[in-house]
Amino acid sequence: MKRIGEVGWVEKDIPSIGPMDALLKPLAIAPCTSDVHTVWEGAIGERHDLILGHEAIGVVEKVGSMVKTIKPGDRVIVPAITPDWGTDAAQRGFSSQTGTPLGGWKYSNEKDGSMAEYFTCNEADFNLAILPDDISPADACMLVDMWSTGFMGAENASIPLGGSVAVLGIGAVGLSAILGAKLQGAARIFAVGTRPVSIIVSKEYGATDIISYKDGDTSEQIVEATGGEGVDAVIIAGGGPDILIDAIKSARAGSIISNINYFGQGDTLPIPRVEWGFGMADKDIHTGLCPGGRTRMERLADIVTYKKGDPSKLITHKFNGLENIEEALFLMKDKPKDLIKPVVIIDD
Amino acid sequence: MKRIGEVGWVEKDIPSIGPMDALLKPLAIAPCTSDVHTVWEGAIGERHDLILGHEAIGVVEKVGSMVKTIKPGDRVIVPAITPDWGTDAAQRGFSSQTGTPLGGWKYSNEKDGSMAEYFTCNEADFNLAILPDDISPADACMLVDMWSTGFMGAENASIPLGGSVAVLGIGAVGLSAILGAKLQGAARIFAVGTRPVSIIVSKEYGATDIISYKDGDTSEQIVEATGGEGVDAVIIAGGGPDILIDAIKSARAGSIISNINYFGQGDTLPIPRVEWGFGMADKDIHTGLCPGGRTRMERLADIVTYKKGDPSKLITHKFNGLENIEEALFLMKDKPKDLIKPVVIIDD
Amino acid sequence: MKRIGEVGWVEKDIPSIGPMDALLKPLAIAPCTSDVHTVWEGAIGERHDLILGHEAIGVVEKVGSMVKTIKPGDRVIVPAITPDWGTDAAQRGFSSQTGTPLGGWKYSNEKDGSMAEYFTCNEADFNLAILPDDISPADACMLVDMWSTGFMGAENASIPLGGSVAVLGIGAVGLSAILGAKLQGAARIFAVGTRPVSIIVSKEYGATDIISYKDGDTSEQIVEATGGEGVDAVIIAGGGPDILIDAIKSARAGSIISNINYFGQGDTLPIPRVEWGFGMADKDIHTGLCPGGRTRMERLADIVTYKKGDPSKLITHKFNGLENIEEALFLMKDKPKDLIKPVVIIDD
Amino acid sequence: MKRIGEVGWVEKDIPSIGPMDALLKPLAIAPCTSDVHTVWEGAIGERHDLILGHEAIGVVEKVGSMVKTIKPGDRVIVPAITPDWGTDAAQRGFSSQTGTPLGGWKYSNEKDGSMAEYFTCNEADFNLAILPDDISPADACMLVDMWSTGFMGAENASIPLGGSVAVLGIGAVGLSAILGAKLQGAARIFAVGTRPVSIIVSKEYGATDIISYKDGDTSEQIVEATGGEGVDAVIIAGGGPDILIDAIKSARAGSIISNINYFGQGDTLPIPRVEWGFGMADKDIHTGLCPGGRTRMERLADIVTYKKGDPSKLITHKFNGLENIEEALFLMKDKPKDLIKPVVIIDD
Repeated sequence: MKRIGEVGWVEKDIPSIGPMDALLKPLAIAPCTSDVHTVWEGAIGERHDLILGHEAIGVVEKVGSMVKTIKPGDRVIVPAITPDWGTDAAQRGFSSQTGTPLGGWKYSNEKDGSMAEYFTCNEADFNLAILPDDISPADACMLVDMWSTGFMGAENASIPLGGSVAVLGIGAVGLSAILGAKLQGAARIFAVGTRPVSIIVSKEYGATDIISYKDGDTSEQIVEATGGEGVDAVIIAGGGPDILIDAIKSARAGSIISNINYFGQGDTLPIPRVEWGFGMADKDIHTGLCPGGRTRMERLADIVTYKKGDPSKLITHKFNGLENIEEALFLMKDKPKDLIKPVVIIDD
Repeated sequence: MKRIGEVGWVEKDIPSIGPMDALLKPLAIAPCTSDVHTVWEGAIGERHDLILGHEAIGVVEKVGSMVKTIKPGDRVIVPAITPDWGTDAAQRGFSSQTGTPLGGWKYSNEKDGSMAEYFTCNEADFNLAILPDDISPADACMLVDMWSTGFMGAENASIPLGGSVAVLGIGAVGLSAILGAKLQGAARIFAVGTRPVSIIVSKEYGATDIISYKDGDTSEQIVEATGGEGVDAVIIAGGGPDILIDAIKSARAGSIISNINYFGQGDTLPIPRVEWGFGMADKDIHTGLCPGGRTRMERLADIVTYKKGDPSKLITHKFNGLENIEEALFLMKDKPKDLIKPVVIIDD
Repeated sequence: MKRIGEVGWVEKDIPSIGPMDALLKPLAIAPCTSDVHTVWEGAIGERHDLILGHEAIGVVEKVGSMVKTIKPGDRVIVPAITPDWGTDAAQRGFSSQTGTPLGGWKYSNEKDGSMAEYFTCNEADFNLAILPDDISPADACMLVDMWSTGFMGAENASIPLGGSVAVLGIGAVGLSAILGAKLQGAARIFAVGTRPVSIIVSKEYGATDIISYKDGDTSEQIVEATGGEGVDAVIIAGGGPDILIDAIKSARAGSIISNINYFGQGDTLPIPRVEWGFGMADKDIHTGLCPGGRTRMERLADIVTYKKGDPSKLITHKFNGLENIEEALFLMKDKPKDLIKPVVIIDD
Repeated sequence: MKRIGEVGWVEKDIPSIGPMDALLKPLAIAPCTSDVHTVWEGAIGERHDLILGHEAIGVVEKVGSMVKTIKPGDRVIVPAITPDWGTDAAQRGFSSQTGTPLGGWKYSNEKDGSMAEYFTCNEADFNLAILPDDISPADACMLVDMWSTGFMGAENASIPLGGSVAVLGIGAVGLSAILGAKLQGAARIFAVGTRPVSIIVSKEYGATDIISYKDGDTSEQIVEATGGEGVDAVIIAGGGPDILIDAIKSARAGSIISNINYFGQGDTLPIPRVEWGFGMADKDIHTGLCPGGRTRMERLADIVTYKKGDPSKLITHKFNGLENIEEALFLMKDKPKDLIKPVVIIDD
């Protein structure tokens, strides 16, 4: 990213590292819709010559003097969110909010990202997880943000075992939320979206009902399908400023609306007063930022290793070589019909 | 209530009761702001000859054939919310939402209220609690809605032990939320309001900082007082449609906004996008309707009996005799400066 | 059950019902290990001419005058546990403990069970769930106790997404706990047991590692397989008085031991002091009794309908006709090698 | 501590510190019963020339090169438990169990304690809290272990607002648990103990009923006083190996037993089978080790600053000068009748 609206290659020195950090080379990289927000929507404000990218698997080149459990040559999963684990927010239980709000998000925000020959990771012992042999770098790339964010959407939704869930949006994060909902015990899962390639994966991940805006108001369809009640939980995984209206209309009295959507527009986001029960209908709204850190990554990897979920289903496009990252990024920007998620493989 | 905007006395038959119900005579009654909303703002829609009132202590006149533990002559606490305990919403853990959204609220909503010579209670065994001898009917009137709602505001806020809380609004419910916050372990408690009579009680109930809009933007004052961070929890106990903006601005990343406010106006309620961290700052919004039922009332009574809180502090005006209920109701409507809560004592 | 140690047929009148009850005829019945405990171990004390059975699907013959949503002819799922939903314990959130400890358990305990031509259900509107057309009575029989208990074992274990779980015992309840663990997000699931027929189902239900006592101390095997750490959660689904020792040894510091085992012997049950961290290692012990009621049954049925789990895998033996219930019961008592669970089908 | 059973002064070099550590001089020190366990009961095994002490307030002498927010001259609260905040156990939410079970406990366990001219603290930025001016070092000494442990006992007990609690043992930790129970919303609080000096403080901290073994079996007294039900929560704050029996007998079906007792004796600890409902009565057993770290200390300090609790009530004996630490330690060992907690003030 050269500036808002313009991307291109930038020549920089190999970054230096502190005593707890690691220097990494990428094995696989995935561009994220957030990168698109950053460049073309100016989501995090102006940046000059910022290296993009926060979804990567890497190999360790060098480690700082205090790093104990990670060593050069290790192939590692690099979470999108790399908290400062000792800080107040982490001690309070909000490790993604360390330092400042959303402060756990450093790559292509506070510092250069992973779309580079070299990139770094803070608190390497506590943020990097060893990549198991049975998971490819490309597949593992789906864990660091997509799965971690989507699964968080389901975890924050406190889904009762056998409960009903609606997932609004079936991009890569929404699909991950569907799988997350299944892994949290949902029985009936409504997937709201229309892209055929996503609909196929949504069913493989556990969706039971596909809802399309082409058949009318989506929240009305969900309410009708649940006997006028609405669902136990709604996960917002896409949509514009008004999506909270759909979400709250789709939810029953006594439910949770769990947001994993990045809201990029609007001064304010509207809650529908009457359907929210005048503020008294027990329709809670939960939010969060993708959980990061080593333990999270290890647990997500275990889901793959022990065959409770398959991340490869999210990958629709594969590129080979760092030089193709720009093409992958534009793919993410243009979103052709057959796209869920592209990955650039540098070395697997 | 004769119709929207008009109150007066209505002559009705003594209500009949079902096998699980009780017929009651009031010992003490308190008018509620909700009654004002109902009559003068048409909050729940048009009603004809509806008897108002949902805050009452009564004496049992008669019970249905299946009632086992409550008997004529018992002096009882009558919760504002009287759930149907077997229904789906109660089994799901949302007893205030039984039947329909907010369906646990029956008095002066689905049926006649308690501002009458006689009134009834459904599922008497499970909704009525015996009034302990050491609590006066007037004091106990503060438990059935004010304390139960205000305390819920604190319970839903998941306050960390030693955490900071801001309570927006210091009417009777806001004051109860302050006491609730203290009983849930809050250390620093900001009370946002200006009425002198309420400020005194807020301090007695545990508030440590009084914030007035006269000194500038209230959320900015709270953020500044907390070193730029904001508080661990915000309880909304009053305010117009825009109060969510203040609440979210006052809350730190990683916090809970707990609403106990009835939102009476506006098609939608605005959430401030940036301060909400674009939907990712872990600022959750919790809601609910006053918990009812026998066990809740028994526990609130125990708080009085075992001297962990004093409900009499909320009562600023006492009337004697049912005939003065209209005066008390107009007091609630006009809100003179020295008012927190009036009670009408019929027999103590 | 004629008395402890003796079973046989008893002639009784058709039971009478109260205004909220239903009279039922069984469609399918399953004997339970608890029935064996009751008869041959005297687990609940002496009983005379008590009709056994608490796992049944039925058809409604008659309903009481106050029953609204269930009517004669309805095919219904009858939970093993049928709480009194208004009572204090249910209001406190412990619906299986209504009235007395374990008081939600009425069949073949407080009253006659379902191994009869007719049996009754209290609070029919709130305890009976309509049997969906796509579930057979035999399959549905697996939900009322086995699945509900086993799943509770997993729910009470607060399994982190991607976490590791050990299930001690792989009878029908243990297998259900394995499926429950998968539905709660476990990645690696250790199944401790040796019966070949159960091992097959345990893998189909999500187990990844089979642990046998024949290969050495089972807790040592689990600790070793997890790098010396132990698992995030242990579910006890069988075993004698000493099983808590195995459980606590298998669990890491910071974990939950979730018990669904009926402890039938021993004055006291031993906790190993050192491995429990002298009472300070954050190894919590959770317990509970099978959740009952209509909403629970509806949710379990949804898990079948929406293909998140298959209860038929538990059924190894099917009998036709009420007259074969004795044979099925003795099968349960003798536990041949190829048995998981027998069902007696009266009418499907 | 020279060896098990023998204490005395040891000459050592000033300890060296790492880049994240701080070197401290004590301002106030309190000996703990754990020190007594360590020396005279060999609780943590043999140790040679180990400096005792883990309850201290200090002044910073020197900090490591990476320490940012703590500087020489700062007066700081030093938690008894100083976790390694990045490690796996902390990321899992169990910061007191970092490294090994109970691994957050370093002072006078893994390394020298604070009963010395100099001592150190790991991860100084994240474990040390600035001592507010309005709290004396002696008072603050009560926070680092006694309050933090006792309050945890109440937090882990999930006390319902207005619920009933029994605290078994009224030493300094038990008294802190009583205050904690009040701050978590308990109404009725049973204090089980006999020492007159403790009984006075227990009442000031919120106890409503004093139970003495001299009046009969304590659990029977509690059950009787609660109408045959038992309490919502039991906090074990003292007692021998059999104390779990009392605790479980005192608890109602649907309750939590929260342990903060160090169990020093017995191979196994007995749970009473029948009163535990055969493992099915929803009587959960929670455990834990004193929470440490900077945020915890800051919150406890806020409780003092904002007058929600007074730690000075625990201090019955004050000494001046490090040389009197031995006398204070022996006081702790001998437990005279008028003792709750001694403090040695070096400099306030």
